[in-house]
Amino acid sequence: MSYYILDTENLGSFLFSIESIKEYFKESSLDIQEIGDGNLNFVFIVTSTSDKTKTLIVKQAVPYLRIAGEGFALSRERMSFEIRALKLYNNLAPKYVPDIYYADEKMSVVIMQNLNRHIILRKGLIQKRIYPDFANHISTFLAEVLFFNSSLALNSSEKRSLMDRFNKNTQLCKLTEDFVFTSAFMQDETNEIELTCKDEAKELFEDMEFKQQVLKLKYIFMTQSDTLLHGDLHTGSIMVNTEDTYIIDPEFAFIGPFGFDIGALIANMINVTISHYYQSHDESYMEYLLDVTCKILIEFQSKFLTLWNRQKESALIRESFIDDEHLMNYKKTFMRTIFTQSIGFAGVKMARRVFGIAGVEEIRGIKDDKVRKQAMLSTLRVAKKLLLNYEDIDNIKKLTVAIKESI
Amino acid sequence: MSYYILDTENLGSFLFSIESIKEYFKESSLDIQEIGDGNLNFVFIVTSTSDKTKTLIVKQAVPYLRIAGEGFALSRERMSFEIRALKLYNNLAPKYVPDIYYADEKMSVVIMQNLNRHIILRKGLIQKRIYPDFANHISTFLAEVLFFNSSLALNSSEKRSLMDRFNKNTQLCKLTEDFVFTSAFMQDETNEIELTCKDEAKELFEDMEFKQQVLKLKYIFMTQSDTLLHGDLHTGSIMVNTEDTYIIDPEFAFIGPFGFDIGALIANMINVTISHYYQSHDESYMEYLLDVTCKILIEFQSKFLTLWNRQKESALIRESFIDDEHLMNYKKTFMRTIFTQSIGFAGVKMARRVFGIAGVEEIRGIKDDKVRKQAMLSTLRVAKKLLLNYEDIDNIKKLTVAIKESI
Repeated sequence: MSYYILDTENLGSFLFSIESIKEYFKESSLDIQEIGDGNLNFVFIVTSTSDKTKTLIVKQAVPYLRIAGEGFALSRERMSFEIRALKLYNNLAPKYVPDIYYADEKMSVVIMQNLNRHIILRKGLIQKRIYPDFANHISTFLAEVLFFNSSLALNSSEKRSLMDRFNKNTQLCKLTEDFVFTSAFMQDETNEIELTCKDEAKELFEDMEFKQQVLKLKYIFMTQSDTLLHGDLHTGSIMVNTEDTYIIDPEFAFIGPFGFDIGALIANMINVTISHYYQSHDESYMEYLLDVTCKILIEFQSKFLTLWNRQKESALIRESFIDDEHLMNYKKTFMRTIFTQSIGFAGVKMARRVFGIAGVEEIRGIKDDKVRKQAMLSTLRVAKKLLLNYEDIDNIKKLTVAIKESI
Repeated sequence: MSYYILDTENLGSFLFSIESIKEYFKESSLDIQEIGDGNLNFVFIVTSTSDKTKTLIVKQAVPYLRIAGEGFALSRERMSFEIRALKLYNNLAPKYVPDIYYADEKMSVVIMQNLNRHIILRKGLIQKRIYPDFANHISTFLAEVLFFNSSLALNSSEKRSLMDRFNKNTQLCKLTEDFVFTSAFMQDETNEIELTCKDEAKELFEDMEFKQQVLKLKYIFMTQSDTLLHGDLHTGSIMVNTEDTYIIDPEFAFIGPFGFDIGALIANMINVTISHYYQSHDESYMEYLLDVTCKILIEFQSKFLTLWNRQKESALIRESFIDDEHLMNYKKTFMRTIFTQSIGFAGVKMARRVFGIAGVEEIRGIKDDKVRKQAMLSTLRVAKKLLLNYEDIDNIKKLTVAIKESI
């Protein structure tokens, strides 16, 4: 099938041309709605008019950035990487990703489960909801996906094939290199700097110690080929209710450093903690958020290690090459690096949301000007603390102290 | 053209089917000799019978390991990576690679300059020859090739394209993972352990501190995507005379860590130093070799930095992102990592040649049993010293002390 852009007019016949989808909807007529909450892509909800439980999501990439319009070209091949990542996730951790009903790289389209009993995690955390199993779920997802796509589990040839399938997600990697690691820390027309924050932005842009650390992490981001990453795992890429956790939108997927997804998630957890500190002043919810953050880190480490301990052979280790004691030492150093780099990436991710493009709702969405500025500056303080000291922040205690001292 | 195996019978007509080669040899008849000094491939010298100055080399990969025969399958696609690397080298550092007259990935063949006034560097150094410009040449080659194929020079998209072109050199990377980083340090049928060295081999295989360090470097080898490497840059991959230096045989080319090629070269320089220490006892030639080794490291660092200082923009750095002072600090730390990892890789490379498959002539070729054993054990001592302490050996002085203390 050659590519064409789907719309509410032609989507019905496209869907009925797919045998399994036709079977699913039978003869029913369809209610098709385009929902506008994707920045990059077109997203449709399709529901059977005769049976409302029959519903699915159609997501299609167009050869430009949806919110910016056709003037901002962006290769639609990004959907190929999203499809590939979703399929891998479905194999490794099916409980934590929507079911995929159909996917076609040529049409840059994926048809999947409609998560209509779930909300975006970011919104839930702003609303002070409690998700009792979230830390457990996301740490399992991260451990499974990061471990099984690394050289600690794959053999040499499997790892290179995996790299081959994700290596050319060039445009989206470049977006991260530019917007996460570069332009948010210097004069750049894409920044969104409020008038009252001009001095603080200038100060950040002139903080060369900070930027030296950013370069270090940017280089790791660009060249450390550890494992398959989601690439944009903030709280807006996760859908939840009290029972379930679903990871969505892996269009930034690429082979990168272990700590990057973990760091992105931690950054967003700390962001919303700061938001509540300055806005709702709800100490117990803040403690809940910090507790979830720590649990994610602790449980990730222990689950990842459990998987590793079960793995006898891989590209890295041949059985009986090294004794258990020294292998455990090696693993300890390895896990320490994942931990500290996660903290470093969390620092960059937090800092870049303060003045860079696409700020997060929990900070930039604060209505009161004074409170918003307080929250923004607090975010910067914590981010700097983490970034400047990340190589030494190698446990939960140091992390919580760093956050509480700087918030 | 579809693939077929060239031999002395059909090579002539193959050559005359290539316009430029036909033009080069005119109507002359050809003298064709197969030379047996390639382990992996078939290599022919072709010379015009009417004009001996018209001569060239034809190298073709077969779908197996030449020295092992058809039973040892090895994808002939390795030649594609060699061709790609040779072409890149020819663009970046043409003075230091043979001229390429013709190359065809489908035929797995390359036709190139016959370096008949040159010898393999390994042989020259065994014979105590002096190469006054070698350190200068090889450090220039390394600086140019390692710098211009890295994220310090390329932009983001160029770097990913480069990775794409070399990522699938899976089989040859696997050979290195197996034979350099694994089997030479454990019981394995491919090892070549002399009867008189059984105890020492056992001791090495049980040295778990050593093997923990090997794992660290193996992981860096497999996952650090810094730049295009030659992948097998020992003194047998370099041809020299007193004026020229040529790098050949980059079939192991892949995107890996900066320190690996430098380490391989340093390892072989130290090997031959040890060989002379125990065999010829020629102190002044030993000093010459150590001096060349140090010069390579020092000049590489300074030439690489010079190139970097000239580069205003790259995937890593946008102009005016950071001030000169902090950029220089960043570069210093970066160069330190290249240096120390080079030392670490040198240690692994040296150690693996002692009991592993394919020992080097300067050590394993020593005729006197006692002297050979002395040289082998000395190699092990120096290798261990470098490997166990590589993260601290960050300058030439520490390196020479480490060598002289352990030799």
